[in-house]
Amino acid sequence: MSELSAFFQPQSVAVIGASKKPGKIGHAIIENMLACGYRGKIYPVNPREEEIEGLPCRRSVQEIGTAVDLAVVAVPARHTVGVAAECGVAGVKNLVVITAGFKETGREGLVLEKELTRVCRRHGMRLLGPNCVGMMDTHIPINASFSAVFPSRGDIAFISQSGAMLLAILDWSLANGVGFSRVISLGNKADLNEADFIADAAADPHTRVILCYIEDVADGRQFLQAAREAGRQKPVIILKSGVSQAGARAASSHTGALAGSDLAYETAFRQCGVIRARTMAELFDLAVAFSRQPVPAGDRVAVVTNAGGPGIIATDHIERMHLHMSRFGKETSEALRSGLPPESAVYNPVDVLGDAGADRYRFALGKVLDDPSVNGALVLVCPTAVTEVEETARAIVDTHRAHPDKPVFVAYMGGRTLAPGAKLVADAGIPAYTFPEPAITALSGMVRYSRARQNPAPQNPPAFTDINRDRAAKTLKAVKDEGRLVLLGSEAARVADAYGIAAAPVVLAATAREAAEKAREVGFPVVMKVASPQIMHKTDVGGVKVGLRNAQEVEQAFVQIQESVQRYLPDAVIYGIEIQKMMPAGTELIIGMSRDVQFGPLIAFGLGGIYVNLLKDVSFRLAEGLTAEEARNMITETKAYTLLRGYRGEEPADINALVEMILRVARLALDFPQIAEMDINPVFAYPQGASALDVKITVS
Amino acid sequence: MSELSAFFQPQSVAVIGASKKPGKIGHAIIENMLACGYRGKIYPVNPREEEIEGLPCRRSVQEIGTAVDLAVVAVPARHTVGVAAECGVAGVKNLVVITAGFKETGREGLVLEKELTRVCRRHGMRLLGPNCVGMMDTHIPINASFSAVFPSRGDIAFISQSGAMLLAILDWSLANGVGFSRVISLGNKADLNEADFIADAAADPHTRVILCYIEDVADGRQFLQAAREAGRQKPVIILKSGVSQAGARAASSHTGALAGSDLAYETAFRQCGVIRARTMAELFDLAVAFSRQPVPAGDRVAVVTNAGGPGIIATDHIERMHLHMSRFGKETSEALRSGLPPESAVYNPVDVLGDAGADRYRFALGKVLDDPSVNGALVLVCPTAVTEVEETARAIVDTHRAHPDKPVFVAYMGGRTLAPGAKLVADAGIPAYTFPEPAITALSGMVRYSRARQNPAPQNPPAFTDINRDRAAKTLKAVKDEGRLVLLGSEAARVADAYGIAAAPVVLAATAREAAEKAREVGFPVVMKVASPQIMHKTDVGGVKVGLRNAQEVEQAFVQIQESVQRYLPDAVIYGIEIQKMMPAGTELIIGMSRDVQFGPLIAFGLGGIYVNLLKDVSFRLAEGLTAEEARNMITETKAYTLLRGYRGEEPADINALVEMILRVARLALDFPQIAEMDINPVFAYPQGASALDVKITVS
Repeated sequence: MSELSAFFQPQSVAVIGASKKPGKIGHAIIENMLACGYRGKIYPVNPREEEIEGLPCRRSVQEIGTAVDLAVVAVPARHTVGVAAECGVAGVKNLVVITAGFKETGREGLVLEKELTRVCRRHGMRLLGPNCVGMMDTHIPINASFSAVFPSRGDIAFISQSGAMLLAILDWSLANGVGFSRVISLGNKADLNEADFIADAAADPHTRVILCYIEDVADGRQFLQAAREAGRQKPVIILKSGVSQAGARAASSHTGALAGSDLAYETAFRQCGVIRARTMAELFDLAVAFSRQPVPAGDRVAVVTNAGGPGIIATDHIERMHLHMSRFGKETSEALRSGLPPESAVYNPVDVLGDAGADRYRFALGKVLDDPSVNGALVLVCPTAVTEVEETARAIVDTHRAHPDKPVFVAYMGGRTLAPGAKLVADAGIPAYTFPEPAITALSGMVRYSRARQNPAPQNPPAFTDINRDRAAKTLKAVKDEGRLVLLGSEAARVADAYGIAAAPVVLAATAREAAEKAREVGFPVVMKVASPQIMHKTDVGGVKVGLRNAQEVEQAFVQIQESVQRYLPDAVIYGIEIQKMMPAGTELIIGMSRDVQFGPLIAFGLGGIYVNLLKDVSFRLAEGLTAEEARNMITETKAYTLLRGYRGEEPADINALVEMILRVARLALDFPQIAEMDINPVFAYPQGASALDVKITVS
Repeated sequence: MSELSAFFQPQSVAVIGASKKPGKIGHAIIENMLACGYRGKIYPVNPREEEIEGLPCRRSVQEIGTAVDLAVVAVPARHTVGVAAECGVAGVKNLVVITAGFKETGREGLVLEKELTRVCRRHGMRLLGPNCVGMMDTHIPINASFSAVFPSRGDIAFISQSGAMLLAILDWSLANGVGFSRVISLGNKADLNEADFIADAAADPHTRVILCYIEDVADGRQFLQAAREAGRQKPVIILKSGVSQAGARAASSHTGALAGSDLAYETAFRQCGVIRARTMAELFDLAVAFSRQPVPAGDRVAVVTNAGGPGIIATDHIERMHLHMSRFGKETSEALRSGLPPESAVYNPVDVLGDAGADRYRFALGKVLDDPSVNGALVLVCPTAVTEVEETARAIVDTHRAHPDKPVFVAYMGGRTLAPGAKLVADAGIPAYTFPEPAITALSGMVRYSRARQNPAPQNPPAFTDINRDRAAKTLKAVKDEGRLVLLGSEAARVADAYGIAAAPVVLAATAREAAEKAREVGFPVVMKVASPQIMHKTDVGGVKVGLRNAQEVEQAFVQIQESVQRYLPDAVIYGIEIQKMMPAGTELIIGMSRDVQFGPLIAFGLGGIYVNLLKDVSFRLAEGLTAEEARNMITETKAYTLLRGYRGEEPADINALVEMILRVARLALDFPQIAEMDINPVFAYPQGASALDVKITVS
């Protein structure tokens, strides 16, 4: 039993703020509870009424006399805290607060919402809302909401951060034959949030697909864990809005939330196996597909059509969605050739021709579904004079029943004539579309899920045994004690070195003589750079010298840098001059880290040098749960990988060294939350090893 | 009157191969001609019948006695040539050949089709088909097809290369309230093709939107001209399949066509102002939007919604489709603030809140459409307890009528409850959708069209006065006379130089002494490369020496190269050694040309050097019609442009010199059809001028 079972399966429900007046929310809830077929006790609570809809009305929750599992609250906002306290005293287990007027209205509302949440916590009650439509479960059944629509029974759980969206979708679902197992309006998420309901839906035997509309997540880490665990059992499909900058602004003014970057969401979703829908249509196409069809074992699709043109359109879209056309085995092609008219196309797409009746579809679909190279099939039916609309539909249904492990979709390309066929297959659980593209898009989402489910369990980057955490901590503390936010190059290099990140040694020298000595230690030739937190563009003030080959050159350079910088910036605080060994050139890469407000450190890998900003050839992962395998994927999915593999006959770079460097950066970021940003640019990749040339670290 | 007017407005139609038997194509055509309300004469022709559907039947077309404007032919393929000859003799003006069994069946069919076409040409008859469904016009009206469905009257012309697709769409259109002005099934395009019908639809007063499904074009140049001219008057929207490699294979096995590359189609469509639809749904969403709404003047969109979440989703998709959210003027925001409840959002998206009635929609939509910064509006309606479904629909319709120059779309986010509203606005010509995204996608297509219509007229690259065409011709001829396909570096440089393409001079020397002399002429330092059509990788055989600073070094290098190459490849034919002046390094670019089978020379511009293949930062244009402005757009739309503008404080490159080089390459490609491919990689761009470092030319 999940923690929230009392939420969905209460033995008794109190409706506080129940009303006799039709049109009032407090009346709609009572009506809904009665109409849905709820089998427990319903207690209307309203001090000014005797009875509502035939149920005796109580003056307060205490008056009920027996412990109540769930209270649905629809009293004015200013009374909610008092009501919650009474509920707590009366032993109510959970609250749904429908009432609006909390943090969505501004500062005062936020204070009220925090007070409400505190009261619930104090009494050990969980809280859904405030400012929500409520929740429903079609299997219990329960309808603790003011929605005018109760959905058909189904196996899709829908969790929505927007109440309006939820009402719109319920209205839409009735017209489109889509059913739900449960529907939850999250409201302001003062306590219970999307992660709680995702986890609970994962445990719900009546739910096969988890669908969410969200604008943000309440707690990145909780969300990641819930989505990951749920995803192993059933698909979690999310439409997250606020993708664009303008959209994010609109979202933040709407929910007042600190949303985190969309890039971090994108990365988090992929890493925890969430299937992200891009549009509302895609969200529901995916939901229906997952609800009715098996998950395909791979990405190879067969197309059976009675017309060439639509077959080509389907083929285009299959490639566009990164699926592949199956290449049939010899047996299949031969069987098709011998069983179909000679003008038929027997490769993929299979064209059974315009004069095909049901039998030809049955034969061809059966043969392609028999083929082990086919993971799923799309059937296209165009209206011709001889199309056997219903017979063909039955042939498709029968053939699919004989191959229940492979998903089948149908596009009925027409309207009036084909409607009976579309209805027949849809009733038998085969999603029917008008055009081929949405079917293919849905199938591609299923393939993404199939792949994600095979991902190994996430695991944080290892605490490599050679890491010297204290040394890094000491350097960071020293910077903080000085009140600085940006580490000097030598400090950043020391932190990197403490974490085994192979940085080119950088040392700080205060005098020309010290510089010469230290240069000898790191080894010639060296680069020298002025060390000053106030100088951003060191080259512009004569603060950089390269290629210094001996002690004498180093001493001279020291003096020259000092003089030049003093001439340009007489007031700059100079910590000394940094000396770094010049490294041989390798493939220039970047490894970076920025910290997302929701999901923590976000690690970047890509092509470095001047091309970073220009070409944006960068891949991202969260440090949280980053395995060596995923770090390797980060590398292989960039264009830089083409260079690293040995472009134009060059020697391949040491990918293992890069994987390790990524993991060490991730470990460092996880160990020190005060590191806000880190950039290693360039990293030089060599045939053996890799070297961090320039490490920048910012703390907060 | 367009050339094809007799096609669509015949005074008389003969149906050759007319049949008494229901179910036969020859019967369906007679039925369709009678049922559609055609006002001219209909002559069934069949030697074995006396009358068909009450019309007297003739034994042959001659027997009709009077000249016939159009003959629709549905006799077996082997009889079509004879029938066409009879029609020619009898003075028939045009033919529609429905009959299949021509080039789509193979070699013999192709021969028959050519013969049929020849007969038509000889008699000055134009031919639609063969292997087509026929054609219809709902305004004439005429239905010279065997389609079971005759569409509603409308203002969309639909031209389809797939008969099945056409039948599917007609079936679909009836269920979706979409009407057509005319519908043409192109079949095998033996004579009349998509360009002919696009040109004619452009002249048709009943057609407002031209819609095409094609798998290829019959004649690239004719298509470009027709699409360009039509596009200036009305939108031309095309779904072209065969985009993917697999799709192109399927298309070529379906139509047997030499299709040309999809990249060339993409480029051609953009350059001639065609709006390309990516999916079938988009094709029809665009058609409906253009048919019912005005073209927006710009890309700024206002959103009016009664719920926050859907507003964010719309905002996201607006940015995703490269549109922009309008920023309202101060007056608008103030008017909205004073006229709406205080909790409303008065910036864009405008949230009129869940309790909004029709009046609030009317007020808010009116204010935003008044704002000059708004080019079009999207209204979102979510179902709430108080939504005034029909009143709100009327408010939207009225407000739009008062602002007829700005497009308005509505998303009715629901099903059952909102259906009456959706119907009401749709009936008034405002496209209604269930979800916001398709409305935005359609609007973005309209914006693309609005921009394309403003493009200046295409104009071929100028014949620069300094071009020495003869010199280029002579060099190309010499190569051809030697039976070679690849020009030597010195030859390619000479051709480029003749066209004023600033190539670093390359000269060929046969002896060490000559090399030294020529090096002095081009100026030191120089690069030397062995010149041999048989040596692809010159460096590998010691065939390249760089940085030679004087005559002595050049002479030495000559001998070394000669010896080294002879040692590695004793049998290679060596033309001598090429000497090129070493140019100072600049930003490395590529300018390339490849010749498309349909659209001629395709010019490429992008980042050069080793990054070309890796990063694919390349833009394309057809040489045909390439203006200086478009050449400049080619440059600005690449990422390389960021470098060229002066990246990180460097001096900007000479963009004008690059524009000119692109135009000269295009001119060269247009002047010499025998040049199959040309690559200049790298081009060095400098603050003043640009230099073609390495020119490769292949001829056919």
